[in-house]
Amino acid sequence: MAEKVLMGKEIIARNEAMFSFDDRSMYFGDGIYEVVRIYGGHPYQMEMHMQRLQRSAEEMDIPFSTEDKQTLSASLNELKNENHLQEGILYVQVSRGAAERNHLYERHEEPVVFAFTKEMPRPLDQLQSGIAVYLTEDERWLRCDIKSVNLLGNVLAKRKAADHDCQEAVLHRGNEVTEGSSSNLFIVKDNELQTHPATNLILNGITRQVVLEYAEQLGKSVRYDPIDIEDLAGADEAFITSTTNEVTPITEFRGTKHVQLKVGEITKQLQERFEDDVKKTESGT
Amino acid sequence: MAEKVLMGKEIIARNEAMFSFDDRSMYFGDGIYEVVRIYGGHPYQMEMHMQRLQRSAEEMDIPFSTEDKQTLSASLNELKNENHLQEGILYVQVSRGAAERNHLYERHEEPVVFAFTKEMPRPLDQLQSGIAVYLTEDERWLRCDIKSVNLLGNVLAKRKAADHDCQEAVLHRGNEVTEGSSSNLFIVKDNELQTHPATNLILNGITRQVVLEYAEQLGKSVRYDPIDIEDLAGADEAFITSTTNEVTPITEFRGTKHVQLKVGEITKQLQERFEDDVKKTESGT
Repeated sequence: MAEKVLMGKEIIARNEAMFSFDDRSMYFGDGIYEVVRIYGGHPYQMEMHMQRLQRSAEEMDIPFSTEDKQTLSASLNELKNENHLQEGILYVQVSRGAAERNHLYERHEEPVVFAFTKEMPRPLDQLQSGIAVYLTEDERWLRCDIKSVNLLGNVLAKRKAADHDCQEAVLHRGNEVTEGSSSNLFIVKDNELQTHPATNLILNGITRQVVLEYAEQLGKSVRYDPIDIEDLAGADEAFITSTTNEVTPITEFRGTKHVQLKVGEITKQLQERFEDDVKKTESGT
Repeated sequence: MAEKVLMGKEIIARNEAMFSFDDRSMYFGDGIYEVVRIYGGHPYQMEMHMQRLQRSAEEMDIPFSTEDKQTLSASLNELKNENHLQEGILYVQVSRGAAERNHLYERHEEPVVFAFTKEMPRPLDQLQSGIAVYLTEDERWLRCDIKSVNLLGNVLAKRKAADHDCQEAVLHRGNEVTEGSSSNLFIVKDNELQTHPATNLILNGITRQVVLEYAEQLGKSVRYDPIDIEDLAGADEAFITSTTNEVTPITEFRGTKHVQLKVGEITKQLQERFEDDVKKTESGT
């Protein structure tokens, strides 16, 4: 069974898929994307991802209507089924289009949509034992709220983290911690959660939003303030959230500051809620 | 005569050129580039462009040796000749490589090099009459010194400028003017030039460097300080520099501030020097 991908409106064999020599994502990183988790063959929070994609398109001045969104959701489901994906991710990108290279884009350009799937087991070990993260300066642009493929700041930070035996980079602008290179950051102190507000400096993660709902259900208050890097040492718990990393405890900060932590009780409660969601998704309910 | 492009080590027909489905430039804007001007069939400042490409590669942790640089220069010359390019540009990009999508890159990935040419006349009208530029907030990342394809901040600013009938966007971080969306900015006041220092906040343009040499030859002093947006109103002259725009006078700033200017004498002197360089390049000397 040859793997398939989505290219425009067609599902084709992966080994036949290539990109136009004029694609603007190649020359300017001029595209947006989403990564949707599949549990037991079912997409998790597909509608939230599609809504965010539509928002990114709007902020980027890329035409993407509600009808486009519905067509795309259907195509993504079809692709997932064709590839018999049970546990993994759906990656989808909308490139502004293919046109002779020019910084100045024209509004009549036709967006290029493509998607692929990838099998990926849940990171069960690290969900239990936690990860070490590497604190490093946030060098990204000022529109991190757009899920664009201008990801060099994230990519370079991720490599730096790996070079220091850390699974994720956690970024800070001066003293203010923003988020991970591909995740959001939470700390817990005195029974209260704290995370960066959803401004232009962070990507408002779907798992972040889900966890904030859980927090409300659990009666935990949330402080929406940038976390001061000096406050990490006093935190009771810390964790990252992301589509692929779910709710992953942090047991160590390295880099700019060195802090050790244990996997905490509130983190575990949030993980339990998430586990319930996974089970529900797997059973298709 | 079908147009040719460079793909890896081969020169192939443009209509046969496509990009790998796994190219990291598509997914992360993970690549660097240069644009070299061709006058009368001869490249202008090729060596400076190749040196900057090598520097970008080093800062990005992309392998690109001095030997790679020499091979690439030769290939670019060959491409220019195959396409019989007389007046135009050579565009060259080095992508980190093609590998299964992952923020974390591996150091053994093979970079993907490609290039194309484009005919482009010199912008003679605007060199004489000047352009209007649009002042807008600089939202780019903090490594603008790397000539990468993470260009969304530039692209969105350029569109905004065009929407206000301006030929270029000039960016400022708060009160400090940095550079244009695809050019560097100079002002002249009391016989002295001023431009942003070559820090991480600007791309140190080849034409910028050339103009700084001319200024020295003309005995003009240069102040390397960020230009305060409030000081634009008091400037005697202003101009942008870039590979395709050469030394282009600014006759109007719009957007954040509104300032009108005349094409100035020092700007004209620098243009004359540049004209001499163009003539020398055209004649192959």
